[in-house]
Amino acid sequence: MTGSAALFTDRYELTMVDAALRDGAAHRESLFEAFARRLPDGRRYGVVAGTGRLLELIDRFRFEDAELEWLRENQVVRPETLDWLADYRFRGDIWGYREGEAYFPGSPLLTIQASFAEAVMLETVVLSTLNYDSSVASAAARMVSVALGRPIAEMGSRRTSERAAIAAARAAFIAGFDATSNLEAGRTWGIPTMGTAAHAFTLLHDSEEDAFRAQVEAFGPKTTLLIDTYDITRGVELAVEVAGPELGAVRIDSGDLPTVVAAVREQLDSLGAVNTRITVTSDLDEFTIAGLSAAPVDSYGVGTAVVTGSGSPAAGMVYKLVARRDDAGEWVAVAKASTHKISVGGRKNAARRLDSTRTAREELVFVGDGPEGAAEFEPDDELRPLMVHLVSDGVADPAFLGAEGTRAARAHRAEVMQELPIEAFRLGRGEPVIPTTYR
Amino acid sequence: MTGSAALFTDRYELTMVDAALRDGAAHRESLFEAFARRLPDGRRYGVVAGTGRLLELIDRFRFEDAELEWLRENQVVRPETLDWLADYRFRGDIWGYREGEAYFPGSPLLTIQASFAEAVMLETVVLSTLNYDSSVASAAARMVSVALGRPIAEMGSRRTSERAAIAAARAAFIAGFDATSNLEAGRTWGIPTMGTAAHAFTLLHDSEEDAFRAQVEAFGPKTTLLIDTYDITRGVELAVEVAGPELGAVRIDSGDLPTVVAAVREQLDSLGAVNTRITVTSDLDEFTIAGLSAAPVDSYGVGTAVVTGSGSPAAGMVYKLVARRDDAGEWVAVAKASTHKISVGGRKNAARRLDSTRTAREELVFVGDGPEGAAEFEPDDELRPLMVHLVSDGVADPAFLGAEGTRAARAHRAEVMQELPIEAFRLGRGEPVIPTTYR
Repeated sequence: MTGSAALFTDRYELTMVDAALRDGAAHRESLFEAFARRLPDGRRYGVVAGTGRLLELIDRFRFEDAELEWLRENQVVRPETLDWLADYRFRGDIWGYREGEAYFPGSPLLTIQASFAEAVMLETVVLSTLNYDSSVASAAARMVSVALGRPIAEMGSRRTSERAAIAAARAAFIAGFDATSNLEAGRTWGIPTMGTAAHAFTLLHDSEEDAFRAQVEAFGPKTTLLIDTYDITRGVELAVEVAGPELGAVRIDSGDLPTVVAAVREQLDSLGAVNTRITVTSDLDEFTIAGLSAAPVDSYGVGTAVVTGSGSPAAGMVYKLVARRDDAGEWVAVAKASTHKISVGGRKNAARRLDSTRTAREELVFVGDGPEGAAEFEPDDELRPLMVHLVSDGVADPAFLGAEGTRAARAHRAEVMQELPIEAFRLGRGEPVIPTTYR
Repeated sequence: MTGSAALFTDRYELTMVDAALRDGAAHRESLFEAFARRLPDGRRYGVVAGTGRLLELIDRFRFEDAELEWLRENQVVRPETLDWLADYRFRGDIWGYREGEAYFPGSPLLTIQASFAEAVMLETVVLSTLNYDSSVASAAARMVSVALGRPIAEMGSRRTSERAAIAAARAAFIAGFDATSNLEAGRTWGIPTMGTAAHAFTLLHDSEEDAFRAQVEAFGPKTTLLIDTYDITRGVELAVEVAGPELGAVRIDSGDLPTVVAAVREQLDSLGAVNTRITVTSDLDEFTIAGLSAAPVDSYGVGTAVVTGSGSPAAGMVYKLVARRDDAGEWVAVAKASTHKISVGGRKNAARRLDSTRTAREELVFVGDGPEGAAEFEPDDELRPLMVHLVSDGVADPAFLGAEGTRAARAHRAEVMQELPIEAFRLGRGEPVIPTTYR
């Protein structure tokens, strides 16, 4: 992905920069924080995703001639501000939760320290990436936990917009999915891709047998045959007839799955295809996957539910100014006054308190006024620090970028899941599995 | 937007092409159809969006060296198939509903006629654009109808992934929204952009008064001041003090809106700011907008609810092979056999039957075997034809592209809305407002 990301921005960010450059406040050093006031719809934990993509977008957040010309023509900002934008690149610091980390209400997911103008401009791009990707990862993690070790593939590209699909494949992979149908996600993020044939391939041919034969000739008997275009029993029979008992897998995309899966397993075994796997892909979500735990399913494919966050398509994160320097250079904690919305001013740091069994018990958020006065704590066996330095003086730590960063996030998520109390994995609605405490 | 769109594709589309090229079936002339089996969650009608974006993506659906190299390295298809892909561009025909058209279950939204290989490859990109954009447009249209003529701006970029945000702004505009906060949507699609300041701008300054003064100095008294950072009553007082009674507007982003809005209107009037408008932006959806119909609101800003399809983030459209030629060159209608999912084979055409008051009464879908045998009907005063020729021999009709196509879609939607029975605009769940009849 290339091209400028500078206009993935709400207009008010540039008008604020414009007005603040005029009165000089634009240069006040500021701390912005991204956090979620609550978890998506009754979930017990959330999973952070989008960070790696965000760091790459921030690097491409530059106003080139085309962007500047459009802003000038449309009089979005004054000419002097255009000069400032032409020089803009992010030169500040970013700390935050590692991608793949679990999060809870109030977890300080990202802290951005830079001049007001530099940092305020990133609001939309920060929230677009964290909100969407974390929504997908948070839903995907629940599906992974109820799949009980059976592999899951993400195949929902068609149910979200064409580039959101790439981000969704990546977020699901971080949350523990094993593969994606999306080729661009394979190319950009190094995620294994999968898929063999749709019903259209069977319907294209004069008979189901012709279609199976064409597929087995092209890919060998280890391929996956889709057996529910006409009659499933006949489909299974034909599949084994054409590919032989070494047939790799059959895919079932419709019907009452627990019943159908059991019948297909029995039929495959009776035909000697005892190693032929069964993959199911029919409008699955965490609840239907849980309902298949006793069925002889070997792998799952999930579409709509994962790419739309299974009922919570946006994670509800916000981006707030929490501290800034005054004219004397002193840090001042700030927050909107509101009876409805929790906002805690000041710089944050965070740790997860673990008990002697290494089980998470509390999300601790340390609050201070600014970088100097705040947010220091002594990590020990009980306190696992949650924030890492993602960007220093505008330069992102390469460990968090690209395919390597994506794999690292997936591995981190696997470790973190081990730490959560067992009640985290209940599917029913409830409270966050550990409380958040401000210190 | 530039760059190849060829990998916005599920892997199985390429494996099907690979296998079908090997056995020759790839060259069979085929008809694929995109349609929705049902409307999103109890809605009375849907609004088609995404078509113009899709046509531009199809034009960019080319396998360049980078894509071919990645497919080769990952052995997605055979080397012979890579040669075919290198030459690929869509050379077929596409008919479909105009963007902005209302649709119902079974409406044949898009018909693609080309060789199997040419047409099957477009499945993911067709569905990604139509599903997401139509989901947003269908939700947005309901918000527009309950806004009773008051302007609505889309400002949900932060609640969906960064490029989905651009598509969402466009879909909402087609559905009757008046503006967007998203700058890239302004640049790419010619949509008016809006926005002045966030709470961060107030918190950056030493006082609310300083912030208001900075904004009024930058943009004049006709600007919109955000008055709920601290105390709303004091905010309104200060806003009029700083900008004078010619203050353009105040924005309210929190609180119990019907009560707050009434109080703010009274206060503004008492301060002589009788022409100062009130805009509200606090987590609105079609239901809260309807709840404000009696309040003195002048305009709305909607975020999360519109970009996530207000509870239905994917419109549920599918892309199915409905007919193809056999070896003798005869068209054969095809459909998956299923007790659960309605699929009607054959080429479709469609018209909306209007009564003498020009009110829609029925969605008529004409079914035939193929282009020759099918889908002809005599349009008359009662039957408004719904399908237009979008792409001829691979060339898109420019009337449907770019900013001009987007404006045309918006205008078409406005006309179509006039035609729907009044019950279409009830917010409660219910059946589609007109029945779909197959002929």
